[in-house]
Amino acid sequence: MEAEEQQAATPSAAEELSRLIAVGERLAIRQFFAGLEPIDVVHVVSGLRDEVRAGLLSALRPADAADVIEHIPEVQATDALESIDPARAARILKELPSDDRADLISELDEEEAEAILARMAPQAAEELRELASYPEGTAGSLMIQEYVRFPSRRTVRSVLQHLQENAKTYRSYDVQYTYVHDRQGILVGVLALRDLLFAEPSTRIDQIMVREPKFVRVDATLSELVAFFEKSRYFGVPVVDGEGLLLGVLRRHALEFAMAERSQEDYRAAQGIVGGEELRSMPLLLRSRRRLSWLSVNILLNVLAASVIAYHQETLEAVIALAVFLPIISDMSGCSGAQAVAVSMRELTLGVTRPSDLKRVLWQEGRVGVLNGLVLGLLIAGVAWAWKGNPWLGAVVGGALAVNTVVAVCIGGGVPLLLKRLGRDPALASGPILTTVTDMCGFFLVLSLASAALGRLT
Amino acid sequence: MEAEEQQAATPSAAEELSRLIAVGERLAIRQFFAGLEPIDVVHVVSGLRDEVRAGLLSALRPADAADVIEHIPEVQATDALESIDPARAARILKELPSDDRADLISELDEEEAEAILARMAPQAAEELRELASYPEGTAGSLMIQEYVRFPSRRTVRSVLQHLQENAKTYRSYDVQYTYVHDRQGILVGVLALRDLLFAEPSTRIDQIMVREPKFVRVDATLSELVAFFEKSRYFGVPVVDGEGLLLGVLRRHALEFAMAERSQEDYRAAQGIVGGEELRSMPLLLRSRRRLSWLSVNILLNVLAASVIAYHQETLEAVIALAVFLPIISDMSGCSGAQAVAVSMRELTLGVTRPSDLKRVLWQEGRVGVLNGLVLGLLIAGVAWAWKGNPWLGAVVGGALAVNTVVAVCIGGGVPLLLKRLGRDPALASGPILTTVTDMCGFFLVLSLASAALGRLT
Repeated sequence: MEAEEQQAATPSAAEELSRLIAVGERLAIRQFFAGLEPIDVVHVVSGLRDEVRAGLLSALRPADAADVIEHIPEVQATDALESIDPARAARILKELPSDDRADLISELDEEEAEAILARMAPQAAEELRELASYPEGTAGSLMIQEYVRFPSRRTVRSVLQHLQENAKTYRSYDVQYTYVHDRQGILVGVLALRDLLFAEPSTRIDQIMVREPKFVRVDATLSELVAFFEKSRYFGVPVVDGEGLLLGVLRRHALEFAMAERSQEDYRAAQGIVGGEELRSMPLLLRSRRRLSWLSVNILLNVLAASVIAYHQETLEAVIALAVFLPIISDMSGCSGAQAVAVSMRELTLGVTRPSDLKRVLWQEGRVGVLNGLVLGLLIAGVAWAWKGNPWLGAVVGGALAVNTVVAVCIGGGVPLLLKRLGRDPALASGPILTTVTDMCGFFLVLSLASAALGRLT
Repeated sequence: MEAEEQQAATPSAAEELSRLIAVGERLAIRQFFAGLEPIDVVHVVSGLRDEVRAGLLSALRPADAADVIEHIPEVQATDALESIDPARAARILKELPSDDRADLISELDEEEAEAILARMAPQAAEELRELASYPEGTAGSLMIQEYVRFPSRRTVRSVLQHLQENAKTYRSYDVQYTYVHDRQGILVGVLALRDLLFAEPSTRIDQIMVREPKFVRVDATLSELVAFFEKSRYFGVPVVDGEGLLLGVLRRHALEFAMAERSQEDYRAAQGIVGGEELRSMPLLLRSRRRLSWLSVNILLNVLAASVIAYHQETLEAVIALAVFLPIISDMSGCSGAQAVAVSMRELTLGVTRPSDLKRVLWQEGRVGVLNGLVLGLLIAGVAWAWKGNPWLGAVVGGALAVNTVVAVCIGGGVPLLLKRLGRDPALASGPILTTVTDMCGFFLVLSLASAALGRLT
């Protein structure tokens, strides 16, 4: 198995790197690093101790270090940049695409960020400061500076000459489209490389450019940008400010990457990883504290839900068999509700459902809830009856589970819409709200049905 | 609020469309459709009844219908294609990018797919059949046919002329790079548009192409492709078969889109949406049955776990207060374990952790488990003590929760790695395994500790 071989190779690679870095032989480090299989780089580098990782990034050529920085988890990248020499950090950042560069700078501690910016060329630092200032999740935070722009009065000849002279710089750009601006820097057109190819050299580019080009505003949000790209087949779009000033270019794949990140964040939030991404290489106390911040809310909600049981203690004492079914009803209602949450989250993402569709969602969930509640209720009723030989016990737990399934799917389906309407993060809060309400309701149903039928149960 | 306005506008838009489609006034339908805000199209169209949606797609111009097909949920798209005239479906598919076209054809019922393929030009149908035959999640299933290729003996002049003559066709392509093959169709080079620009017209293109280009195999998996693009800055890469035959081009954003889809599928699987995506517009029985397939496994696991309680029923009878804490311990252990699952899933995705890292993961989870177990155990012990005034009750439930937290994080952290090593889907199975084992273990701990301390509890 491939994994086994890698297992054997990896620890020694990390150890060897650590040893070379401790000795400080830069050339040997670079040679060893160049010999690593590309697919192993992330695993090896992210598994190093923090100071060894920083030492490695200091020792590598800036371009190689930038390549590593781009692919290891962001928290490790920022930690490393903060702990190496600012001048070296500046040189590494210079090798990154402008959007990644701005991302990293905005994640650094302010003091460290300023130290690095001070080592950059003043204009580059100024540009980076501005890029880093756009709020996360807006077009500004996703756009790149690696694009080509020309004043509208240039001729085809001079543009071609410029492209030729700067061919080396532009090699890593996507120059299929270039952008045309007026003397104030206002975007006035888009110019396709293929149109340059077949035009008269003396033509002015504003004669062959596409006028009134599509653009997005620098403060456009992710969902606005998704809507834009859904309606267009462009691979990129110019980004302008309120006055139409050309600020950058947003590429489709940057948006898709941001959306993928967002959906993974949603998943992590739903599973209780809050306060930022967790890597197991992070300090123990930080990991423990962050997880506890979520768990401690949950335990309070749990105690609240369990208080319903405490309140009906006498019924429970009379029919102890009920205690066996309480966790089942709690867990099964949670599962049914989680399915409804997942469908709502997906439909919200697709744009098929909107927060205003609450009534329709409740109707459609309620019907599934009735069906599934009947099936699950009958199942558990059968188990209870068979176990204790008392059909009334079956009726109580089965009835409670059936009704509570309807409650759970309605809450699970509806809560994400409500949270979204309130501007809250549905991924984070839907789970705890769901479990608390369905637990309380489920416990109440079992125990009050049992109280009512107490004579038949004992 | 924007959402409110849309709420008011949407039902009438859907109703108006339904009315126009019932009447069958094609021109009126097209006009009304053209007047819809782009951001509303998905919401309106996906909210239509199935037969109305099919009617709409029949009435629209093929290019507009293709645009709709691309953006509504895939199940709705395939349903619609299956129910409209095959000749029209063929015309709509023709307007889609080749990868989307192949995706849809492979999702259709075989009979309907053949009926549509029979209405296409024979060569186009053959190509489509082949594209649709590549297994999901491989380079073949993600590559596109919209790229430009030339035999290596062509001259720069003839290539430029070809590009010029076909400018209209290539307008929607990304022609920044073209691909060069030999007489057998074997990939031999990559040719950048900008290099064509500045070359002598009489030069043969194999003189200016980049030789020994990077490529990926048609059967490369998603994770191999991710590793490839992580190490390169290309926006696209040629796809070849085992003999080096050029088959298509894989674009970076197609891969990123596939990865985003995969992570959303993982999330849905973890929440119990299995057997394919669910939309609330699907038939009630289908939705109910699919959800039940997951719930019925869970209820069996739940009964299994609860049997531990049944087994200790006497202890429970003696100390009825324990019944209040059983659901709390079950839920809290589930939460702690879910956090560990989320971290493992993320680290596996990032490539930071591999299935072979099990020992390290258990060590790092175990330590967090001990810390968090102590905190949560003390909390719940305090609640129990305060409620019943019996410190031994606190010790029993607190001790059980503390130990079970360690168990839960180790299982949560380890199970995804084990499932991955076994080639199973960790997103789907980790949750149920986690809750069953931690429930059984948690119930056992509480009740056997309580049995041991029975004299102090009553």
